Amino acid sequence: MRVIMVKGFSKTGKTTTVTQIIKELRRRGYSVGTVKDIHYEKFAMDHPGTDTYKHTQAGAQRVTALGEKETDILLSRRMDIDAVLKYYKEDFVILEGDSGADCPAILTGATEEDLAKRMTDQVIAVSGIISGKLDHYGRLPVINCLEEVEKMADLIEKATEEQKQEADVILTIDGVEIPMVPFVKNTLKNVVIGAVKALDGYEEGKEIAIRVKG
Amino acid sequence: MRVIMVKGFSKTGKTTTVTQIIKELRRRGYSVGTVKDIHYEKFAMDHPGTDTYKHTQAGAQRVTALGEKETDILLSRRMDIDAVLKYYKEDFVILEGDSGADCPAILTGATEEDLAKRMTDQVIAVSGIISGKLDHYGRLPVINCLEEVEKMADLIEKATEEQKQEADVILTIDGVEIPMVPFVKNTLKNVVIGAVKALDGYEEGKEIAIRVKG
Repeated sequence: MRVIMVKGFSKTGKTTTVTQIIKELRRRGYSVGTVKDIHYEKFAMDHPGTDTYKHTQAGAQRVTALGEKETDILLSRRMDIDAVLKYYKEDFVILEGDSGADCPAILTGATEEDLAKRMTDQVIAVSGIISGKLDHYGRLPVINCLEEVEKMADLIEKATEEQKQEADVILTIDGVEIPMVPFVKNTLKNVVIGAVKALDGYEEGKEIAIRVKG
Repeated sequence: MRVIMVKGFSKTGKTTTVTQIIKELRRRGYSVGTVKDIHYEKFAMDHPGTDTYKHTQAGAQRVTALGEKETDILLSRRMDIDAVLKYYKEDFVILEGDSGADCPAILTGATEEDLAKRMTDQVIAVSGIISGKLDHYGRLPVINCLEEVEKMADLIEKATEEQKQEADVILTIDGVEIPMVPFVKNTLKNVVIGAVKALDGYEEGKEIAIRVKG
């Protein structure tokens, strides 16, 4: 899983940048997830009158709406971004807004002052409203995602390359190692990670060991 | 984690039964989660105009709204109930509607015909609209959750007692043992056995050990 952030002040083009990147990554065959950081005190996803809202009002701390075409898990508190990411398994996750994740970032702005205020070492490119006015900002490319999103997607693929990790899988049964072809290894790895990733303590890259008395 | 279902035809008192049980279990000091099964073709949690909606429209397969007071993870497909339950760690999870989970159930109905149509071996009690009209239905107690929810909560505690039993599963991540509630242990055990049972070398009762660099 590869994670990238799109950050910047309000109304500087964050959502447009994110949606353009989503479309291009999907066009390239990747699965894509996103996280939108919402700093609006009164934000609420559900609304009075629904059964799920009644569950929350009655005191349920986690409520899922299991629909025919969607599944919505609603938790009655703000989660830490790292905990949120444990629920993901898409090829790419794009974070809209600065949720504190440690990953490469694209910075949007309307003016050079905006950019200066939010610049960090993690920023790999500039985009948003200012991208019609500048070609470069310092050493960073300024990319207009409405016109040249391919260039941005290339940059994202390159900047997140190291987040891809090749993994080893070893299976023993009563102490005897069982040989597996790569496809089976990958499947088993995905099954194990899928089964444990929602647990506290799991982090991408850590070694997982399971013992089961079958 | 202990799981119970409240099922029955529409408008027979499911949501009232669920919210009463939530309140009583919370009063008893338990953490509670719920899953509402929604069989309404046009159901949608998010709505046009929000940034999260734009992410979904652009092709994002999983979108999280990370608010100040809530976290909403929206997946663009129906998940299997067992997969949904992996995200839970509450003491009790109450399923509203028959999502196919294998657990004790409370059946609501307006008439005896309703009850007869939805009765299974898993049903431990009857509730809902009919509870003003009947005391017993066959050998099953009929409980009015608006007036005697304590009785229902006692029954639920008893019926789900065995779900606290632990499977023989040890999970370590980078050498640190991860605590798991019994329901999650059972699920993990089933997942591991399901994944390796087709391989040469597997036999029931043997110890399976897997190491994965995640």
